[in-house]
Amino acid sequence: MPKRSFATENCSLARTMELVGDSWSLLIVREALLGASRFDQFQACLGIARNVLTVRLRKLADNGIFESIPLADGGKRLQYRLTDRGFELVTLIGAAMQWGDRNLFKPGRHPVRIVDQATGHEIPTLELRSSTGQALDVDRLDFLPGPGATAMTRRRLAARTPPVR
Amino acid sequence: MPKRSFATENCSLARTMELVGDSWSLLIVREALLGASRFDQFQACLGIARNVLTVRLRKLADNGIFESIPLADGGKRLQYRLTDRGFELVTLIGAAMQWGDRNLFKPGRHPVRIVDQATGHEIPTLELRSSTGQALDVDRLDFLPGPGATAMTRRRLAARTPPVR
Repeated sequence: MPKRSFATENCSLARTMELVGDSWSLLIVREALLGASRFDQFQACLGIARNVLTVRLRKLADNGIFESIPLADGGKRLQYRLTDRGFELVTLIGAAMQWGDRNLFKPGRHPVRIVDQATGHEIPTLELRSSTGQALDVDRLDFLPGPGATAMTRRRLAARTPPVR
Repeated sequence: MPKRSFATENCSLARTMELVGDSWSLLIVREALLGASRFDQFQACLGIARNVLTVRLRKLADNGIFESIPLADGGKRLQYRLTDRGFELVTLIGAAMQWGDRNLFKPGRHPVRIVDQATGHEIPTLELRSSTGQALDVDRLDFLPGPGATAMTRRRLAARTPPVR
């Protein structure tokens, strides 16, 4: 059975995971946030196989997360720069880091702090909030059809039952 | 070459992606948030192969994202319930949905709205914020060693250069 593609599903989670939901893609973006821009830099930092890195960088560039521009050395080598769309992934990366900090490391033993440069303070935990800034527990959320919902998405959401807690 | 494992890396992003960074795991959690709890419900909603679903559910349960308890029907079937750790993934899922809404659908055509039950308003875009609530652009963030940083993590972060924008 061929690997199923989620790229056309009527779900932004499925499409996003299709694009960056593999073990490497967000780590490549992480390295770019830490300053990597050349193939060899990504390769050295991540210890990723060159053929895998080639495929991942191309997919990320084809989908507008990186732009690739020739290096100024006159050769054929490329430089990979995050686009605005790529920089926007910092929220997703931050959410994943904070979840991992809390759940996959000993309490208070997280490896990296994301810090506000202006104050030196670590940023607080991301939470889904109301339009007035109140943190919303999952029990207080609804998942409703958006303007791009298909008939099937509408049926699925209408059949939603709150999860048992 | 065997698939590399990130489960022991000194990086909460790598560990989190090792656990839920595949095309299916967060979609399984999504279905649980929409009310699925039995194997057949996950299978029907996702159209996932039964053997793949079995492996994914076991991994998620082994890692404390679901707890599996016998169904009340006296048989051998199990019910999968999100734990607190599982429910906490809603922030990561929300961040992924919002990124996909903005970048992988036509403007204003997102399929699902996450809504505050109390007001019926869609929740605003998640952003990394300072401790006083100010939205922080990536240029205003630092990535510094946390209390659990290894020597290598410290070296890597010390060598960070801001990405070109």
